[in-house]
Amino acid sequence: MVATANFLLEGLSGAQIERIKSVAEEISLEKGDHVVTEGEEALSAYILEAGAIELTTFVEEGFDLPIAILRNQGEVFGSAALLPPYQYSLSARCAEKSTLLRLDGTALKQIMSEDSDLGCKIMTNLARYFFERLKETRLELKIHFKTLLNSTRS
Amino acid sequence: MVATANFLLEGLSGAQIERIKSVAEEISLEKGDHVVTEGEEALSAYILEAGAIELTTFVEEGFDLPIAILRNQGEVFGSAALLPPYQYSLSARCAEKSTLLRLDGTALKQIMSEDSDLGCKIMTNLARYFFERLKETRLELKIHFKTLLNSTRS
Repeated sequence: MVATANFLLEGLSGAQIERIKSVAEEISLEKGDHVVTEGEEALSAYILEAGAIELTTFVEEGFDLPIAILRNQGEVFGSAALLPPYQYSLSARCAEKSTLLRLDGTALKQIMSEDSDLGCKIMTNLARYFFERLKETRLELKIHFKTLLNSTRS
Repeated sequence: MVATANFLLEGLSGAQIERIKSVAEEISLEKGDHVVTEGEEALSAYILEAGAIELTTFVEEGFDLPIAILRNQGEVFGSAALLPPYQYSLSARCAEKSTLLRLDGTALKQIMSEDSDLGCKIMTNLARYFFERLKETRLELKIHFKTLLNSTRS
């Protein structure tokens, strides 16, 4: 079942959610399994059904920076599958045994082009989502600068 | 004149750009003038016609972190006027005497709701834009972590 408590499907009608459900495939993964890899072609978006997903970004050999851990049903990752250049910006790994819904990017884009109201809502949701993540990331950057400033002074 | 070489209007038809032009107001500002302030209600989006705009974010008293300098005709800032919570995430100041087009947020949202194709294109452009800025900001964060790692080692 597609959870409605996710940012991507916010504002969609029941029928629109059903339509998206029709192209979703449920997959089960073990703790430690890799779901998507940063830099690779983004073929699918994912919705967390159960378990936990760790999102990371590669910094250097042996060090991946944790970005988030998703634990709530309905949380979405891999939405790069909906936007050019269709390339994952993060890696996702199961922090626990997990159940996911895989949404094929091509099928989703097809639905979005056929139902422009649905497409528009999803794009609005994505714009809001990325803007929020951008503000969070800038805040993190600021904290680093503050720490740096304070260490220079002390 | 609204420049078409800006991310917000990408993919819009000539007629759609004309419609947006009809609510644009040209303003002239001097070097040092503040255009928008971080945290304040985002009432307008802006398109750079001539001059240069510095975007910054507040870190602490006496230190604003520079985020970008816009120098190209058609560059856009203040797009927070199109997305809830309608609050500027950065401050903008004229780095030179500048000419801007001010797009009233309420008028723009009205046009977007009346012409859903136009609204959808603008939301898609915003989603792509914020995603790109997010990736850039994460990259900057990574550079800080790398510097930190290297300084710990040396």
